[in-house]
Amino acid sequence: MPKITIWNEFLHEQSNDACGELCRKHYPKGIHAYLKKALGPALEDCTIRAVSLDMPENGLPDKVLDATDVLVWWGHMAHDKVPDALVDRIQRRVLGGMGLVVLHSGHMSKIFRRMLGTPCTLRWREIGEKERVWTCDPAHPIAQGVPETFAIEHTEMYGEPFGVPDDAHVVFMSWYAGGNVFRSGVTLQRGLGRIFYFAPGHETLPIYHQPEVQRVIANGIRWCVPANGVGPAPGCPHEKAPFEPVQ
Amino acid sequence: MPKITIWNEFLHEQSNDACGELCRKHYPKGIHAYLKKALGPALEDCTIRAVSLDMPENGLPDKVLDATDVLVWWGHMAHDKVPDALVDRIQRRVLGGMGLVVLHSGHMSKIFRRMLGTPCTLRWREIGEKERVWTCDPAHPIAQGVPETFAIEHTEMYGEPFGVPDDAHVVFMSWYAGGNVFRSGVTLQRGLGRIFYFAPGHETLPIYHQPEVQRVIANGIRWCVPANGVGPAPGCPHEKAPFEPVQ
Amino acid sequence: MPKITIWNEFLHEQSNDACGELCRKHYPKGIHAYLKKALGPALEDCTIRAVSLDMPENGLPDKVLDATDVLVWWGHMAHDKVPDALVDRIQRRVLGGMGLVVLHSGHMSKIFRRMLGTPCTLRWREIGEKERVWTCDPAHPIAQGVPETFAIEHTEMYGEPFGVPDDAHVVFMSWYAGGNVFRSGVTLQRGLGRIFYFAPGHETLPIYHQPEVQRVIANGIRWCVPANGVGPAPGCPHEKAPFEPVQ
Amino acid sequence: MPKITIWNEFLHEQSNDACGELCRKHYPKGIHAYLKKALGPALEDCTIRAVSLDMPENGLPDKVLDATDVLVWWGHMAHDKVPDALVDRIQRRVLGGMGLVVLHSGHMSKIFRRMLGTPCTLRWREIGEKERVWTCDPAHPIAQGVPETFAIEHTEMYGEPFGVPDDAHVVFMSWYAGGNVFRSGVTLQRGLGRIFYFAPGHETLPIYHQPEVQRVIANGIRWCVPANGVGPAPGCPHEKAPFEPVQ
Repeated sequence: MPKITIWNEFLHEQSNDACGELCRKHYPKGIHAYLKKALGPALEDCTIRAVSLDMPENGLPDKVLDATDVLVWWGHMAHDKVPDALVDRIQRRVLGGMGLVVLHSGHMSKIFRRMLGTPCTLRWREIGEKERVWTCDPAHPIAQGVPETFAIEHTEMYGEPFGVPDDAHVVFMSWYAGGNVFRSGVTLQRGLGRIFYFAPGHETLPIYHQPEVQRVIANGIRWCVPANGVGPAPGCPHEKAPFEPVQ
Repeated sequence: MPKITIWNEFLHEQSNDACGELCRKHYPKGIHAYLKKALGPALEDCTIRAVSLDMPENGLPDKVLDATDVLVWWGHMAHDKVPDALVDRIQRRVLGGMGLVVLHSGHMSKIFRRMLGTPCTLRWREIGEKERVWTCDPAHPIAQGVPETFAIEHTEMYGEPFGVPDDAHVVFMSWYAGGNVFRSGVTLQRGLGRIFYFAPGHETLPIYHQPEVQRVIANGIRWCVPANGVGPAPGCPHEKAPFEPVQ
Repeated sequence: MPKITIWNEFLHEQSNDACGELCRKHYPKGIHAYLKKALGPALEDCTIRAVSLDMPENGLPDKVLDATDVLVWWGHMAHDKVPDALVDRIQRRVLGGMGLVVLHSGHMSKIFRRMLGTPCTLRWREIGEKERVWTCDPAHPIAQGVPETFAIEHTEMYGEPFGVPDDAHVVFMSWYAGGNVFRSGVTLQRGLGRIFYFAPGHETLPIYHQPEVQRVIANGIRWCVPANGVGPAPGCPHEKAPFEPVQ
Repeated sequence: MPKITIWNEFLHEQSNDACGELCRKHYPKGIHAYLKKALGPALEDCTIRAVSLDMPENGLPDKVLDATDVLVWWGHMAHDKVPDALVDRIQRRVLGGMGLVVLHSGHMSKIFRRMLGTPCTLRWREIGEKERVWTCDPAHPIAQGVPETFAIEHTEMYGEPFGVPDDAHVVFMSWYAGGNVFRSGVTLQRGLGRIFYFAPGHETLPIYHQPEVQRVIANGIRWCVPANGVGPAPGCPHEKAPFEPVQ
C-alpha cells in the first residue's frame, strides 16, 4: 500500500494579509490538507499523510520520511527555512527510490534544485491571466484520463526559459494569455527515484479545485511510486562498492 | 568552404490562385531563391545553391547531393512527388554526416519522417494569427544573436502535440494568439548528421523577410555543417563490418 | 488481457546446413515457438501467438496485427523478404500504441530501422565468446528480478558504435571477452508506442534457454503493453487535424 | 583567447607512501602541472593556469574563477576539503556558461555531484587491468582525431552502474579485462554551461602520458568553451525576473 506524504510550508495560509485571506478562502486547512482530501478518491489504495514546516523536525523526521514512498512538495516563501540537512536526507531517499512530486513554486525549492543541479528559474507574472494546458505525450501514464487540452481561467504565469536539464521529459506544456509558454509538466529520474514537476497551482487561486489538475497530480503521484519500495542510494557509501574480479 | 543546397518544391509560386499570387508577391523568384539571397550575407563563407522539384532528377542528382554539406528543405503540397529512391539517397547522406535543415511544412516531408520514424504530425490553423517565439536554450549556437523573444505578427499556427522523438532538443518554443504552443525549433542527430527543424515560415506570408527568422535559419545551417565533411553512412554495408578480435 | 504476437522469419530452423542443425537442436519447432512456450509462465495473463514469414501474408494479416498489443520480432537473413507495405502497417500500429520488442539481429530489420531512422549498425564477431550483461538502470521495470550482472558463456558479439538515436534509454550494457562493449538493452518511444531492443539471442546458441534472458524479454514485453490499447497513429491523416480557435 | 584553469587537489603527489612515489614518478610537479604542459600544444590559442587545493582560497579565488572559461577538475581523496561555499561559486559560474571538465575520480567530487544531483557512483577495482576505450559518437567534436578504439594497458576499473542522469550523452564507452563496462566519456549541459566527464586517468598510472587521452581531454576542454563567455546564472536572483506583459 503506497505511502504518500504531502509537505506544505503552510505559511501563506497563516499570514495576515490579502494573500493569506485568499489562501484560507480556497484552502481553509492548508493546501496540504486540501490535496490530501481532494486526491483521496483517486488514490484510495494509498495512505496519505499531510505535514508542514511548522511541525517537529519540519514535519519530516526520519520515521515519517522512512515511511514515505512518494513525497509531494509545496513551498514558496520559506525555501530557505528548510534545513540543508533535511534536503540531504530527502535527496538520499529519492536516489534510493522515493518518488518526488514538486508543485508550482517548488521549482525554486532547495530539494528540486538539488536534484536537478540547474537554475530551475523561469519568468513569471501574477495578473490572474488565462492558462491553457496541452498534453504533449498522451501515451504517458500521467496523461491518462487527461484531455488533450484544458483551460485554467486564472493563473500565475510561469514562462520559458525554464532552467531544467535536457532529460526533463515533456508531458504537458502551457500557454498563457500574456504571451508566454512553459514546459509545465515534466518527468525526470535521479538515481532510482522518479520526479514529476507540475506548474499549475497557486496559493491565492482555486486551481487545485479543478478536476483536471487533481487528475494530473494523482497520476503523477502514482507514476512516482517505486516498484521496489525505497532502499539506500546506489553505491553509497562509495567506499563499500564491491571489489572483486567479475569476469 | 561549406556547400549549402536549398531545395524547394517550388509549386505554390507557380499556381494560378490567390495563394500563388501571395507567394509570388513575397518570394518573386521562389522561396529557395529568396532564402539563397537573404542568407548570403550571414553565410558569406559558404557556397549556396538553390534547386527545385521541377529540375532534372528533382534538383538533387548525385553530383549535387555529393557536393552538399547541408541540405535545406522546403516542401508542402508535393511531399508525395519526391521519389522514395531520392529519400533513400538523402537519408544515407545525412547518416554519413550531411546536415539537414527542415523548414515549416517540411515536418511532413518524406525525408523528415524517414529520419525520425515518428508521425511528425501537429495541429494547425491558418488565420494569420500572431506568433511569439521564445528562446529556450540561449546557450545553443543556433540561438546566438537571437533575442530571448520576438514576435511574428501573422503566422500559420503549428501546435502541440508535435510527433517527434524524445531526443528532439528544444531550442525554441512558440506561442500563438489562438491558444496553442509548439516546440518550434528543435535539433536532432541521426547517424553522423545533424538535423534542425524550424517551424516559422509560410508560403503566403513574408515571414522569411524577418531578420530574426533569417538569423535562426543561418545559425541552423551553420550548426549543421559536418566537422569532417560527409562520408558513407556508418557500418554500411553492414556485411563489411570488421571481423577481428580487438582485445 | 494483453495479446502478444511473436514473429520469426523461421528460416535458419529449416536450412540444410550446420547452422540449421544447431538451430533445430536448440529450438526444434523454431525460435518463435520456443519463446512462446518459455515465456508463457511469466506472461500467464497474456495470450501469446507465434507466427512466421512463411505463413499467409507473412504471418501478419490485418486480423492478426489488429489483435496484437505487443509484437516481438526475430529476423536475420530475410529482412529484405518483409514487404515494405507490411513495414508501413507495423509502423502505423506502433505509432498508435502497439509495443515492439526487437531481438538480436532484428537491429537490422526494416521495421526497427524504420522506427529509428538511424543506421542501427554495429560491429559483430561470431566466435562464441563470453558475454557479461550489466544492469545500468536497476529501477527500470524491465530490470525487475534481473541481477546486477549475469554471464552468457557463448554468444555472438555485438559491439559499439551502435547506430541508435540519443533517446535510446540504456537499461543494459554488455561486455565481451574479445574486447567490445555494447548498449545491449535499450528502450525508446515512437508516437504512442514503446520499443525495447535486446541484443542477446542467436540462432545457433541456446541463449534463449537462459532464465535471466527469458526474464528480461518477458519484462520487456510487459513494459511495452500499451496502457490504452492500440489506436490510430496520432494526427493521421494529417488533413483531419482539428481546425478551430481553441483559446 | 579562452582561459583554462586546471585544478588539482595535489595531495597524492605529496604523500609519503608507495602511491605518492608512483604519482611523483609519473607527474613530478603534479597532475595539474603535467596536464598544463601536455595539453599546451593542442590548446596553443588558450591560456592555461594550473592551481591546487593548497593555494590561497583553495586556488580558486574570485579573481581566478572570474578569469576562467573552462575549469578542469582533478580530485580524489580530499573531496570533503573543498568548501561548500566554493562549490556554490563554481556552480553559479557553470550555470552562467563556464565549462567544466571533470576527470577520473572527480566523479565523486562535490561539484560534479552538485551539478548532476545523482549519486555519480560506480563500481571500481584497482588491479592495473587493461582498458579498451570505444568511440560511440564519432561525429562529436570531442571525438575528432580520436580512433574508433584504443587501449590503455594498465588502468583502474570504473564500472556500471554509473549514477548519472539520462541526458548524459555517451561519447565514449570503456571495456575492462576484468569483465566490466562503463560510459567513460559523457557530456551534459547545466544552465548555460557545458560539462564533460572523462574516466581514464589515475594518480599512480601514466595514463595522461597517452596521446589519445591527451587528445580527448584537449577536445573536451575546447568543446566546453562558452560561445559568449561566462555571465551570471540565468534568472538569478530569481526575484529580479522580468515582470511585464510581453504579448
